[in-house]
Formats: sequence, C-alpha cells, structure tokens
Amino acid sequence: MAGTNRAYESNCGIMMDVTNAQNNRLRLKRLGINAQNEYLVFMRKDCPVCTSEGFEALSRIKISKGEQTIVASLIVWDDELQLSHDQLSLSDSAIEALKAKEGDLLTLNHLNALNSMSDVRKKIYGHRLNQTEFDRIIKDVVNRNLSNIQLSAFLASCTGDALDRDEVIALTKSMINVGFKLDWGKENVFDKHCIGGLPGNRTTPLVVAIVAAAGLVIPKTSSRAITSPAGTADTMEVMTNVNLTTEEMKKVVLKEGGCLAWGGSVQLSPADDILIRVEKALDIDSEGQMIASVLSKKAAAGSTAVVIDIPVGPTAKIRSQKTAEQLSDKMVSVGKEIGLKVEVVITDGTQPVGRGIGPALEARDVLSVLRNEENAPVDLRERAIVLAGKLLEMAGKVDLGWGSKIASEILQKGIAYKKFVAICKAQGYFKEPEQAPFKYPVTAHEAGKVMEIDNRKLAKLAKLAGAPGAMTAGVLLYTPVGSTVKAGDLLYEIHAESQGELSYALSYHETQTDIITLN
Amino acid sequence: MAGTNRAYESNCGIMMDVTNAQNNRLRLKRLGINAQNEYLVFMRKDCPVCTSEGFEALSRIKISKGEQTIVASLIVWDDELQLSHDQLSLSDSAIEALKAKEGDLLTLNHLNALNSMSDVRKKIYGHRLNQTEFDRIIKDVVNRNLSNIQLSAFLASCTGDALDRDEVIALTKSMINVGFKLDWGKENVFDKHCIGGLPGNRTTPLVVAIVAAAGLVIPKTSSRAITSPAGTADTMEVMTNVNLTTEEMKKVVLKEGGCLAWGGSVQLSPADDILIRVEKALDIDSEGQMIASVLSKKAAAGSTAVVIDIPVGPTAKIRSQKTAEQLSDKMVSVGKEIGLKVEVVITDGTQPVGRGIGPALEARDVLSVLRNEENAPVDLRERAIVLAGKLLEMAGKVDLGWGSKIASEILQKGIAYKKFVAICKAQGYFKEPEQAPFKYPVTAHEAGKVMEIDNRKLAKLAKLAGAPGAMTAGVLLYTPVGSTVKAGDLLYEIHAESQGELSYALSYHETQTDIITLN
Repeated sequence: MAGTNRAYESNCGIMMDVTNAQNNRLRLKRLGINAQNEYLVFMRKDCPVCTSEGFEALSRIKISKGEQTIVASLIVWDDELQLSHDQLSLSDSAIEALKAKEGDLLTLNHLNALNSMSDVRKKIYGHRLNQTEFDRIIKDVVNRNLSNIQLSAFLASCTGDALDRDEVIALTKSMINVGFKLDWGKENVFDKHCIGGLPGNRTTPLVVAIVAAAGLVIPKTSSRAITSPAGTADTMEVMTNVNLTTEEMKKVVLKEGGCLAWGGSVQLSPADDILIRVEKALDIDSEGQMIASVLSKKAAAGSTAVVIDIPVGPTAKIRSQKTAEQLSDKMVSVGKEIGLKVEVVITDGTQPVGRGIGPALEARDVLSVLRNEENAPVDLRERAIVLAGKLLEMAGKVDLGWGSKIASEILQKGIAYKKFVAICKAQGYFKEPEQAPFKYPVTAHEAGKVMEIDNRKLAKLAKLAGAPGAMTAGVLLYTPVGSTVKAGDLLYEIHAESQGELSYALSYHETQTDIITLN
Repeated sequence: MAGTNRAYESNCGIMMDVTNAQNNRLRLKRLGINAQNEYLVFMRKDCPVCTSEGFEALSRIKISKGEQTIVASLIVWDDELQLSHDQLSLSDSAIEALKAKEGDLLTLNHLNALNSMSDVRKKIYGHRLNQTEFDRIIKDVVNRNLSNIQLSAFLASCTGDALDRDEVIALTKSMINVGFKLDWGKENVFDKHCIGGLPGNRTTPLVVAIVAAAGLVIPKTSSRAITSPAGTADTMEVMTNVNLTTEEMKKVVLKEGGCLAWGGSVQLSPADDILIRVEKALDIDSEGQMIASVLSKKAAAGSTAVVIDIPVGPTAKIRSQKTAEQLSDKMVSVGKEIGLKVEVVITDGTQPVGRGIGPALEARDVLSVLRNEENAPVDLRERAIVLAGKLLEMAGKVDLGWGSKIASEILQKGIAYKKFVAICKAQGYFKEPEQAPFKYPVTAHEAGKVMEIDNRKLAKLAKLAGAPGAMTAGVLLYTPVGSTVKAGDLLYEIHAESQGELSYALSYHETQTDIITLN
C-alpha cells in the first residue's frame, strides 16, 4: 500500500493514478510479446489493481477497452524496468483483439465463472455433452476465453474413447459453426487429407493434377511448414503463386477444376487451430477431437467427398492396422452425419516418401513423377495413384476397382502434367524449381545395406541448411532403406543457397555419425 | 536465414554468434518476469536457435548451464526492443534454478519425451497408476519438468472418483517423499486443518492454546493471506513473532507444547504448492488430490494425529453433508495407511465466523474469546471448543464425548489464555493488537433484518483499506445475518491506517449498495 499512500499525498497527476486504480484501470505499454495460443497480461505485483483485486500468477482477468473485451492470463512482473506503477502490458494478439494502442487506459476485472467451464467440468467428471454444451465450449475456445490450462483439461477429458459417436458429431458441428464456410457453387467438391504427415509425402500436387485432369472439382488448400523442412504450400511456392484470396481460388477452380493454394489466409477451423497446439503439447491423440478437427475443416472448405490417407507405421501417428481401421469406420460414419462422403486408404507409414527434403527438392520429385522420368520416386508415384484412383471411383468416373489403373494412365499419358502446369499458370505462373548453388556430398565409408535412416536428423540438417526459408536448400537422399551401397557411393547431398548456411549445416553434420545406419 | 548469412559474412565477433547458435546457445538477459508456477523462456522468433530447432510458442525447451538443467515453456518475442539476436530471457525462478546471471551463455535443446508423461497419458486413458508411476510424476512436478498444460491434464484425469483408495495412498506417499519431513522427537504430535476456509474463521490460535494447555504437543504452522484480507499467520503476527526457523519452533514446542508459526519458510509439500495453482485455475476438486494434499502436508509436518474441520455450506468448498461424510471416510482410511490418525468434524459453513476482517481485528476476536469477554463472538468460541475437544479425546486426555466440556473449562478458567500468551512470549513477545487511527462507520438507512452479507465485497473493502499489509486495517462487522437493526444503527466500520487508504476504500464503497441486504 506504500504506493497508494505516496500517490494520495502527492500531486494532482498521481491522484489521477489512484482514481484509475480504484476503477481498476491501467495504461497499456506494448512490449512485443507473442504468446500465440493465449492472451497474456503482464502486471506489476505491486500495482494497485493487482493488490486490491488479489490478482496472482495464472489469474484469468477480463480486460476491456470500450466495447471490446478479452480474457487474459496474468504473468507478474517483479521488476520496475519494464512497467511503471500504473502500466500493464499485453501480448500482441491481445492488443489487436482489443483494438488498443500504447497509452490506452484499460479496465481490469475478475472473470466471472464461465458457463463453458461448467460444461468442461461435466466432461471431466465423465458425463456426456450435448450439442448446446459443445457449442458453448467451442465458442469460448475461439474467443480465447479459455486458458491453455482449461483447454488442456477439456482435451484430456475427451481423450481415448471418452467421446461417443454422437458427441463426435456434435463436436464436429460446433467446430464447423464457429468457422468460415467456403461455397464453390458445385454439387460435388473433392478433397484429400493425410493423417500424420510423412517426410517428403508430397502426393497432394499429384492427386490434384490427376483428378482435375479427369474432370473433378478439387479446390485444395495446404499448409506451410511449421516444424518440418517443407509443407505442401512451400513446395508449390517453388513453382507457382500460392497466396490466393478466396475469390482468386474460385477463378482458378472454375477454369481448371483444381487449385493448389496456401490455406493460411482462410481461417477454416479457428477452434482447431487453437486446440491443436495444446494437444501437441500433451502429445495425446484424442480420437474424437482428431476426427472433428479433420472433418470440420473439410466441411468448412466446402468439400462433399474426401479421401483420407492414413499411413500406418511404428513412428507414424497411427501405429497399428487395427487402430487405423477403427478410425476409418468412425470417420466414415461421422462424415455421413455432416453430409461429407469419406473414404479411407490405409498406407505404408514405415519410411519417408520420395527423395528430396526441402521445398525445391520435393518439387523436383513431384515434377519427375508428373513427367514420367526414369528416376522418379516409385513410392511417391504409387501412393498418389492409389489416392487419386479412390477419388475417381468416389466420383463415379470409373468403376470400382479401376481407379488406380485410370489414374496411372492419366499420369502416364502426360495429361496430369499438362493439368498441373495449367493450374500453376492459372494461379499466376509456372516455373521450374531452381538448383541450390552449394552442395555437399556425403558418401559411404564402407560397403553395406541401408538399415535405418534417422528422419529427424535429416530434417534438422535440411533446416540448418536453410529450408524452407531458402527454397532450394535441403537434403537429397540417394539411398532409401534397403539399398546396397559400396564404399564411396553417394548416400545423400546437403544443398544450400549460401556457403554460410552450408557450413552451418556441416558443423552440425560433423557431430553426427548415425544419420544413415549401414550393416 | 538472413540473420545467419549476415553473421557469417561479417566480422569475427559475429562469427562467434554463429558458433553459439550452431551449438544452440544464447545469452541470458534478465527482464524480471515472475511466472511462479512454471519456468518461462523468452526467445526471438527469428533467433538462429528458434529457427533451426523449429521451436514455437509452447515448445518445452531444455535449458542448461553447466550441471544445472531446467525445462521451460517458450514465449516468442517478436519485438527487437527487448532481445537481440543472440539473447534469450527467462522468468526469475528459472534464472535462480539455473544459478545463472546476466550474460551467461545457456544451451537450449528439445526436451526428450518424459517418462512421467507416459504415466500421465496412462491415467488420461483411464488406467490405474502404481506407486512407481506416481513417484515419477510427482518428482517431475517438483522439478518443474511438467508444464501447466501437462499438469492440468494430469489433474483432470484424477478428478472425481478417478483415483481409487490405493491410488490416493500412493499419491499421498509420493507427495510426502518429495518434501522435507519434520521430526519433533515425540510419540504423539497433534495438528488441525480446515478444508476450504471461511472468512474470519480463526479457530487455530484458540485450538492450539486450549490443547497445549491440556498438555498436547501441537506445533502448528499456518499460511499468510494470498487473496484474502488475512491468513492465520497474519493474524498471529499482530501479537507475536511468527517467522520461526524449524530449530526455533522446536524450542517453543519443547517449552510450551505448541507454537503458532508461519509455515512459509518450511516447504512441506512442494508438489502440492505447484499442483494447487493449476487446480484453482480449473476450479475442480479432485477429491483424491485434495486428500493427498492435506494428509501429505500433515505427515510431512511430523504430525501423528489430526482433527479436520469440514465446513459445509452453499458457498463453502464442500456443499453437502453427504459429500463431507464420504470425504471424511476416505481421509480417515488413507490417514491410517500413512500412519496418521484422522478425525473429522463437519461444521456449519453457511456464514462467516467472528466479527473482524483483517489481521488486528481478527486478533481482537481471538483475544476476546480467550479472555472470556462478554461480547466475544460466540460462533468462533463454539467452533474452537468442538475442535479442541476432539483433539483432547483423540489424545486420550478425556473420555469420549467429554472433549468439548473440558475444552470449554480450559477456556473459561483462563488457562488457555495464559498458555496463548506463554506461546507468544516463547516465540519472542506478546503484544496487544493496535487500533486503526482512521475509522468510518456505516449505518443502516432504515430498520430491518440482516438477510445477506456479501463476504466478497467486505473482503475487497478490507483489502482496499490496506489489509493485510496494514495490520490494523479491515472491516469490523456489527450485525451478523439474522440481526435486527433500527435506522441509524451501526452495521460495520471500515478501519484504515491512513486517511488516503480510508478514502481509497470509501470511493469503492460509494459505488456499492448491496454489501448488507436488509429486508
């Protein structure tokens, strides 16, 4: 209370502070903090609002500026360096949500109990939730009224088989309702999705090219890399423009039947974007949550039929055939309820796909398949054909069982390649992937058979070499698992755009001995 | 990667940065951040370690300085104002744990999967955990290897009746094992505990005085206020010294049989201190967790027998007689397994206890009961007698059913008062509570009966008036629920130590009309 005394006995300017503090008001100071998932508020432990309201670390605080109100979690600042007595700071997203600016007076209050937290607690205690209750929770998720701690408790309570079929349907509908929904003005709109990506698994450009060539409508949006050396959007960006507005996407799809755009500008499932971060931090697979996540995104994207690739393998997201089959059944069944035709293809998830790691190197893999080049990666080609074939069957373009054959022919005859280039041009231009100017070959010290490849280390190498920021950077793998090599044979090449970045990757590489294990 | 290029092509000093970054090293800058429960690390989004490791918001990062290693959650700093390219910042507790100082080079790495998180996931999926698994989790809780998100998922998975009796016993033992255990060198050591405190419920000093006077050993430690206007330690501090080391406590207890010290300096249940914050944020009562929390603290305090007060009421922590009885059964049963004799007293939790709110005002309530003053609060006296009586029965000092009568006599004859003063003197001194110099009386505008008292608002008023920092500040209530008042009768007084603080409380008071509801 020393501060209060001083303020009160002092001059008129500080009197103002007292009045502000009585009304729980502090001034905003911007500090450039990005907490992504959650709004954070930073306050001094000894500021009058903290003291009188009994706020402490983790307190959920309602912060208002005029009509705008948000909820933020408190982090306490002990130091006088950052904030003065009458100041607070907020994470940048919170400042944006409040439409506030430096120096604004913000009002702080205790957050009253949220109704959605009663729903969350109901689930924690093992009861079933109905549509209204899921709606309330998901609405508060999107408005960021729930803290990461609260989201975590919700996700934990939904884990395993805690959600029955009706609950998964309700959750999926809630997630669709809070997002933006695209409308293509077509009766049948196709899509594809892969659960738990594999390194190098760039089937998407191939599948889109093949089925669009066959006349299907497939407005595909993809993500950029978050922690990997390349996402499908990064790979496509090597060859064309991927930053399309919804209107631009519509024009491309109207002309060519398909597009290959970056999905980041269209917020299709804002609830999922928030939940997925917490789920990742917990490393739990809430099956119901995952189904709701995938299917709500597809429905919001305006799709009516989707083929889902589930790679199964010991290091893949889905580890057993049985789990994959159960998941498949549920996805088909939930899809039906929300008007989405779902078919699942269970694939081999034991190995990386293709040869390149990094945007341009993966683009070269894609093009070599489209161009039927001799050294095109067989695994990538095969996977794309199966998925495209399934979509052709779903569309009734071919008889059941003939999808792969027709897809293979479309590829073989160069029709898919033509369509791919046409899509790229409709998006702005098509250009060939460039080659990195700096390369470092890694050869086998001795003869042997490739027993194991450490994908995580290869990915780190690709990222240190500059991928995905440096588009041509990455790693080109010459010897997949099972290859036989002689001493001196090329195992892989590190590609970089500058000598600096190459050295950067190499100094990490020098400390690693077991990236490729020979026997 | 622009940063890397620039660094590499530049002078020798910046070359150093590249080498540091390759080895995932950044320099510490202290910013005075207090996140209490969790270690936080602040890094620039574009710093070379973030980029190459793919760290993102919420990433769990292992940070080392020499032998010291901690795990922290990442918050990303977009702004260049706070951190340069080769710097990071940490919350203060993390800096302390690393024994680091400004400018130190710290090494950052991905956190490998924690074994304890496998155990947590096992519980999330609804399986039973054994002693080894609880030990692993609680050890990581104490070492702060688990983030708040992970702690939340653990707590959610333990909620309701998710823990069976054996699991509660195992959890309790795990929590005892990670803390410090006190040894009083006595066969029987008594204690008391109240579940979910009521405002003004200062029975502790009375119970200790009564049973110590009867010859029991009761080395009581209490907490200070966190969000309330006074804790038992704050109230005792008005009259004596409460900052005792364990050695000093031992001396007092050896001399007088009991003590009334602040428990803050003895970390009896470090795991509980961390879990309880997250539980509070979720507003869930994990019954098993609560039992483990209370009993582990008592066992760690070296107690062998404890009486537990469970107030039941609509705004109390426990809301029904039935829940209280079930909880009581489990506490007795778990207590037995860890060698702790437990008895439970279920009490009325519908109203605040006593008349004063604030350290000195509550101390005056305590003294008026000890001195058998005419206007001493009857409710406070009655509660203390029941609890003390139960302890006397547990100790075998009196026959079953006679405890309250004997406790009342000890109080009536002034023996408890004498013992209380002796304990205070053994702790350093005894002094009378002072009176606040500034008082503001609030009177009834009309006649009526007191129907309702808003405890939360009274507490806020007491805190704005300066409690507990200003010891004599607070609110003195004249009319409990049920009182009949005439117009002009005194309802309550606001006490403050300075005119400034009084005005501060009054300007809040002016905006409130319904602190006391008359009909």
